[in-house]
Amino acid sequence: MAKLWGGRFELDSSALLEEFNASIFFDKQLWQEDIKGSKAHAKMLHKIGVLSEEETQEIINGLEIIAQRISRGEFVFNASDEDIHMAIESALTALIGDVGKKLHTARSRNDQVALDFRLYVLKSNKEIVNLLLELMASILAIAKVHTSTIMPGMTHLQHAQPINFGFALVAWACNFKRDVERLLSDYTRNNKCPLGSGALAGTPYGNDRIFLTQELGFDEPTLNAMDSVSDRDFALDMLYSLSMIMMHISRVAEELVLWSSSEFKFISLSDEYATGSSIMPQKKNPDVPELLRGKSGRVYGELMGLLCVMKGLPFAYNKDTQEDKEGVFDALKNVGLCLRILKECLKTMSIHPENMYKMAKIGHLSATDLADFLVRECGVAFRDAHHITGQVVAYAESKGVDISDLSEKEIMGVDSRIKQGVKAVLCLEYSMNARNTLGGTAVTQTCHQIEVLESFVREQMACLQVGRSKNE
Amino acid sequence: MAKLWGGRFELDSSALLEEFNASIFFDKQLWQEDIKGSKAHAKMLHKIGVLSEEETQEIINGLEIIAQRISRGEFVFNASDEDIHMAIESALTALIGDVGKKLHTARSRNDQVALDFRLYVLKSNKEIVNLLLELMASILAIAKVHTSTIMPGMTHLQHAQPINFGFALVAWACNFKRDVERLLSDYTRNNKCPLGSGALAGTPYGNDRIFLTQELGFDEPTLNAMDSVSDRDFALDMLYSLSMIMMHISRVAEELVLWSSSEFKFISLSDEYATGSSIMPQKKNPDVPELLRGKSGRVYGELMGLLCVMKGLPFAYNKDTQEDKEGVFDALKNVGLCLRILKECLKTMSIHPENMYKMAKIGHLSATDLADFLVRECGVAFRDAHHITGQVVAYAESKGVDISDLSEKEIMGVDSRIKQGVKAVLCLEYSMNARNTLGGTAVTQTCHQIEVLESFVREQMACLQVGRSKNE
Amino acid sequence: MAKLWGGRFELDSSALLEEFNASIFFDKQLWQEDIKGSKAHAKMLHKIGVLSEEETQEIINGLEIIAQRISRGEFVFNASDEDIHMAIESALTALIGDVGKKLHTARSRNDQVALDFRLYVLKSNKEIVNLLLELMASILAIAKVHTSTIMPGMTHLQHAQPINFGFALVAWACNFKRDVERLLSDYTRNNKCPLGSGALAGTPYGNDRIFLTQELGFDEPTLNAMDSVSDRDFALDMLYSLSMIMMHISRVAEELVLWSSSEFKFISLSDEYATGSSIMPQKKNPDVPELLRGKSGRVYGELMGLLCVMKGLPFAYNKDTQEDKEGVFDALKNVGLCLRILKECLKTMSIHPENMYKMAKIGHLSATDLADFLVRECGVAFRDAHHITGQVVAYAESKGVDISDLSEKEIMGVDSRIKQGVKAVLCLEYSMNARNTLGGTAVTQTCHQIEVLESFVREQMACLQVGRSKNE
Amino acid sequence: MAKLWGGRFELDSSALLEEFNASIFFDKQLWQEDIKGSKAHAKMLHKIGVLSEEETQEIINGLEIIAQRISRGEFVFNASDEDIHMAIESALTALIGDVGKKLHTARSRNDQVALDFRLYVLKSNKEIVNLLLELMASILAIAKVHTSTIMPGMTHLQHAQPINFGFALVAWACNFKRDVERLLSDYTRNNKCPLGSGALAGTPYGNDRIFLTQELGFDEPTLNAMDSVSDRDFALDMLYSLSMIMMHISRVAEELVLWSSSEFKFISLSDEYATGSSIMPQKKNPDVPELLRGKSGRVYGELMGLLCVMKGLPFAYNKDTQEDKEGVFDALKNVGLCLRILKECLKTMSIHPENMYKMAKIGHLSATDLADFLVRECGVAFRDAHHITGQVVAYAESKGVDISDLSEKEIMGVDSRIKQGVKAVLCLEYSMNARNTLGGTAVTQTCHQIEVLESFVREQMACLQVGRSKNE
Repeated sequence: MAKLWGGRFELDSSALLEEFNASIFFDKQLWQEDIKGSKAHAKMLHKIGVLSEEETQEIINGLEIIAQRISRGEFVFNASDEDIHMAIESALTALIGDVGKKLHTARSRNDQVALDFRLYVLKSNKEIVNLLLELMASILAIAKVHTSTIMPGMTHLQHAQPINFGFALVAWACNFKRDVERLLSDYTRNNKCPLGSGALAGTPYGNDRIFLTQELGFDEPTLNAMDSVSDRDFALDMLYSLSMIMMHISRVAEELVLWSSSEFKFISLSDEYATGSSIMPQKKNPDVPELLRGKSGRVYGELMGLLCVMKGLPFAYNKDTQEDKEGVFDALKNVGLCLRILKECLKTMSIHPENMYKMAKIGHLSATDLADFLVRECGVAFRDAHHITGQVVAYAESKGVDISDLSEKEIMGVDSRIKQGVKAVLCLEYSMNARNTLGGTAVTQTCHQIEVLESFVREQMACLQVGRSKNE
Repeated sequence: MAKLWGGRFELDSSALLEEFNASIFFDKQLWQEDIKGSKAHAKMLHKIGVLSEEETQEIINGLEIIAQRISRGEFVFNASDEDIHMAIESALTALIGDVGKKLHTARSRNDQVALDFRLYVLKSNKEIVNLLLELMASILAIAKVHTSTIMPGMTHLQHAQPINFGFALVAWACNFKRDVERLLSDYTRNNKCPLGSGALAGTPYGNDRIFLTQELGFDEPTLNAMDSVSDRDFALDMLYSLSMIMMHISRVAEELVLWSSSEFKFISLSDEYATGSSIMPQKKNPDVPELLRGKSGRVYGELMGLLCVMKGLPFAYNKDTQEDKEGVFDALKNVGLCLRILKECLKTMSIHPENMYKMAKIGHLSATDLADFLVRECGVAFRDAHHITGQVVAYAESKGVDISDLSEKEIMGVDSRIKQGVKAVLCLEYSMNARNTLGGTAVTQTCHQIEVLESFVREQMACLQVGRSKNE
Repeated sequence: MAKLWGGRFELDSSALLEEFNASIFFDKQLWQEDIKGSKAHAKMLHKIGVLSEEETQEIINGLEIIAQRISRGEFVFNASDEDIHMAIESALTALIGDVGKKLHTARSRNDQVALDFRLYVLKSNKEIVNLLLELMASILAIAKVHTSTIMPGMTHLQHAQPINFGFALVAWACNFKRDVERLLSDYTRNNKCPLGSGALAGTPYGNDRIFLTQELGFDEPTLNAMDSVSDRDFALDMLYSLSMIMMHISRVAEELVLWSSSEFKFISLSDEYATGSSIMPQKKNPDVPELLRGKSGRVYGELMGLLCVMKGLPFAYNKDTQEDKEGVFDALKNVGLCLRILKECLKTMSIHPENMYKMAKIGHLSATDLADFLVRECGVAFRDAHHITGQVVAYAESKGVDISDLSEKEIMGVDSRIKQGVKAVLCLEYSMNARNTLGGTAVTQTCHQIEVLESFVREQMACLQVGRSKNE
Repeated sequence: MAKLWGGRFELDSSALLEEFNASIFFDKQLWQEDIKGSKAHAKMLHKIGVLSEEETQEIINGLEIIAQRISRGEFVFNASDEDIHMAIESALTALIGDVGKKLHTARSRNDQVALDFRLYVLKSNKEIVNLLLELMASILAIAKVHTSTIMPGMTHLQHAQPINFGFALVAWACNFKRDVERLLSDYTRNNKCPLGSGALAGTPYGNDRIFLTQELGFDEPTLNAMDSVSDRDFALDMLYSLSMIMMHISRVAEELVLWSSSEFKFISLSDEYATGSSIMPQKKNPDVPELLRGKSGRVYGELMGLLCVMKGLPFAYNKDTQEDKEGVFDALKNVGLCLRILKECLKTMSIHPENMYKMAKIGHLSATDLADFLVRECGVAFRDAHHITGQVVAYAESKGVDISDLSEKEIMGVDSRIKQGVKAVLCLEYSMNARNTLGGTAVTQTCHQIEVLESFVREQMACLQVGRSKNE
């Protein structure tokens, strides 16, 4: 068929160009949003007197038939249709005749694509929030049963202080909580209706943009038509939020890889979430966490790609912007998959508290407690306490034992300022539970943190339900 | 002097290493935050009984003396001090003696740097918001006097429809409004106090974190100590928000470069904001907008850099994180400079409405109005109207004139469906004012948009004043 | 079917995981390389006595049948096959029975994928070089007929000095020449055979790696097995070289967009390479150059993505590395398309020398010649000449004319040091041809540059032919 | 003082702008190159008759005096000088009077900065190559004494096969060898002289570019003036090569962090290259490797930043390009520092062969040897052998022992196809030395690899000496 915009052009496009220009093979993902937007637009055209009631009904019926065809996989997309808007409009005209052509009145592909893509990103925003909340719930469920499971807390990958495993999992959940909050603010900031902006300057038909806004479930119309067709902030906000999720996932994944190594043995991944080697039958490779870690690069790249595309573009719409979608689609698909996979991976892994405890006994983990004891009980300035503790550690190392294995007498022999009672503070449980302030690793504090996060998950899940019924 | 943490180490660090490890030469920018945090920490230590009233006062007095020295430029920073925390603590101990050493009780450099850097980023957040609001105010002041200044509205850098210059400026302002909103949500999400988290697990001293939170003007304490010392989301959020500002500035700058070219001549930059050529004396180069455009790359790179640093880091603190600051400092400095420079550049440029109008007469800008007329007045379907308009344009081009120069008879001769009255809709003022829906370019709509934005600026400025007094 | 590596695993992988882990849907692009590598491996296994002549022949015949099936589209790829290596091996065993299983002797998927991907990148390297040379040839063919077509040479998008259009095109070609040279050095650096490295440490079968190297057309075997399975430098080198090509293309595209605007009108794109507007029938949008410009972001992002993936990975193979392929495949496809499209776009565009000349008359382009005249003929120091020229320009602007429109008397009136004969040097042709040093814009110099580049293209085309016959 | 280019400008620049525009505070690093280029330019001007012998000598003497002042730290750089070119030219004119002004004849700041920066990057290229070679030499020196030190070779951070420590270090060295080769091809590709290109079109003075090329030690002049002032490929090539070095360093650093953890204990960093904790006296944090790892992000960001700056820039020079230098300077400084620090860090670390060996005994590392034995000695197809081995491993795990601890009888009991002699192949030394093909981990192969690399280092060091004397 002839290009819809072909009026004044004499030459046909070649196949190569069609492949280059056409966005239909990826923007067809927007079909639901395109039809939703077209139905609202048709109703609005009726409201302002451009379409009769009968025409409006014909168009809406036609669009619903097309929607059914697409959802059943019976709709053929061709490169010659160029994009999803053209594909649906052509199909509509083929189906209901000339009245279909009236649908494009008072609308441009510029505001049409701005609408479709924004609706898609907002819908996806909720889906990702939902997956994050489900992941948090899974993490918290595990944390809950491990608030007394002692492990070596590390900084610089060196044993530092004894913590409980639940506490370490709460740290993960806090990252995903921020991701939820970031997505919520993205949603609010971008939940505005661009439809009715025309090509760049509005339309002369008196489009009722308040009606469109309500019909499509937005908070308000966008303020300026030129900005509306140029703006891709909503897509960049999504790519950034997805990058942050992947950054957080990569850190969790790194810990899973480390913890499932022979050196750590803190956890074992389920056979489902690890794979074998084609040449080394004894191995159980943490392929899933490794891929989770690696997929951060892809999403970062997609963020950087779109930032570069937008750099230095004059207003208003430029074709460069067509490059906005594939990265977002790919990032959404991959992040969605990663969140689901990570949740399952955590649910099915085995946890080895005995190995965690064994390792926590290595590295003088209660050294800080010794220093604190010196300050609190012996009236030594912290920096001096630090120094004395260093000497006790050196003494223990010279004997090849952990400081907790030294006798009280040996410890007190290192420096005359050390008082009696020092040995008691060196046990790991004591040390962990001593950190009993807000945010600390003491069992009661960890439990409190879990409760706060569970309550956050519950509330957000409820909001999502409400939001869902409103917008869909 | 000996390293403060040197207890068990036998060898001295070489100069090379000192240069490599030391952060003092850039993190000294955090001195105000470090002292602010230390004063709050001292008061808290007094509240929980670790410091006597006298000791507390000595420490606070000492810190204030150091603050004065630094602000007067009388404080010498050495690589051997390693970082700002050590530098100030050493100076304090030198100044007030052993009591100074007690300040580090119940605190780690991990939560100390997390606090200092977060305070710095939050303070900078407000400064950038303020600069954005001032830029918006300047843009709107210009827009206000140009709501009737007709120029060619472009898409694809091709003339599309007549718009007014004020409307184009409003589009700019809408971008910066989103930047303000993004920074506000960053602020809220990250306005939490990490102090009291210790090295990674809390402290055994019963730190009163609610007191610290209030004393330092935060909304609440962070939830989990391990997350608190690992989290750099607040820094990444800032780098992303700054990247978006630079992306928006790069688009504005591109238009300034284009508009000040011989081909466009829509504006002339003030001599202050353009520079001459060392070899071509007649030239007036838009150096400032070019640099504004180019500086986007730097900030994008700083965002990408920190995302890479954080990728795959195990919890909790790792030294890699020391790489978080220089990029943020550089980005803040440059974005602040860009916002101020852009404001001045716009204020001082000359605008040439006559050239804008002349160019608006080129390119059949009222062609859409012809198509709309065909739909509205002649009952033609939009797609057919588009086709007929194409034929009229082709006819005009064959005669070498703009469609507005054709006589009504000539126009009607192209297709029998074209009705009388067609010529009137082809004038540019008519065309512009016909786009009279929310967001449109009609003068009344543009004025409305300006009012909405001015009211936004006023309100946010007021909030900032309140926020300022609260937090500082 | 059961997973080939399933020996010790008790649970089945779920569909979700299969989708997550499987690379088959993108790495199937490596099928030719995988079969090529397997044939060489089979021959080598025969040479070292692992396979009999008959077994070798059976395997090779089987692989050729599979190759035919794939090339005819008769081969079904399933997610359960996980990757292209498994898919082909399973098919081989199904086809020829147990002897097929012997093919994996003395080989690991780690060295197999390192080989396949490297072969693919090297093959693509040549294809991209070929496309670059063809693009250069097209540019030079246009340049050749425009060595006397005067246009305004610009810096800062401001008119600077008169140049010829051919000269501007030569600048483009020089960029693509560097791209060719970069790809050639990538090829040489990476043309080494990793096969025979096993999983990470070599194999105990005495693989004849010299034989493999020769059989597969490499220069030499890789030096160390562990490095061989970890190394993805060849893929990053390709992504960087492709990023540079896209950067160069984006600059060319920017000029095409500018030049086809109403303000410039230096060129008109063929109707094939521009598209219409759905709402503005008079427009001819430079969609193709805009997309060419925008596609730089995607390729940059893919480079950044893989750099992030590789950051901080311990040796040797990690599953993260599976993320290396999709970006490279996508970048190669898009850059290949861009190079072909750009060539066609240039070939079919119309060039408007009269408009170029008209614009060259604006902006005092011969001002530098005036300054040079002052230095050469009047003995004035350059900086002073620059100053005097500034005064002449200011005088011309005050009269609203170009300096070339001033009379000799007027010019000489500005400063007493200006000598007679000054008016002659102000003509554009004089000015252009005065720049007659190596690299200059004088017609003879431009012709020389074209010859040098044509000779480069011819030589490299010839090398490519030779290289082709050698490696394939 | 007045701006040198200020001729036609009426207004003074404000301080803010000066800070924004001025590059002097970073491009002063180019002072040596600027003076070197100016001396060559002066000689050339003499050769073509623009300067007298006396004038030339005055200028050269003046430049040498300025060089001495700068190198002694006696030269004051002011923002009002704008850039290094202006700073030196102003100083020259102040020193030797009006003849100084003649130096800028037949030159533009566009070709001047293109020359200076290119010379700087080429000089730095050699310095980085030298540091890479020194690092390789250090790695090889350690490798040489550890070709029999058995450690667990890993893939996916899981124990895979026994290798020797020297072999693992050779893998590192191979990465740095590619970095050297990449820098060498960058050097060759970019070793071309841009001086004489003028602002964009050449000059009308007949500059002798062949003379300049020889005088400055380049291979040839650049081909086209417009390209010469636009081209920043040489800077991007450097940033990419530096990014690759940092990627390689980050991988080495990751291994150092892992290996120095309590879980691995393969190495201990020297006290100089690890630091203590301010709160946990027992810790020895691998700060240096962590920072080495983290600094990759910064350099990646600088590459991405410049790629973005260059995207979509029209030819020829644009001010955006001023953003090319700071990233390159920072990257060069940091990569240079990292290479030196890493070398020292490796030289001073302690290696614990006993711990490596102990860990190599965990994880059934000789499982592959069992599979290979089944293939070679028992005539079992590889895939079947893999399966049988899996069963033996499962049996060993059920008994809680390593497969090497099973008796021959037990092993043979698992599958009837297993032949006698199987136990011998399970010892680690046997396993390692069995991988005796090119690239393999057998001691003889590792020694061969070390020799090849040592010879590479020697040859490149020699080339560098020759190159040095030639170019400087």
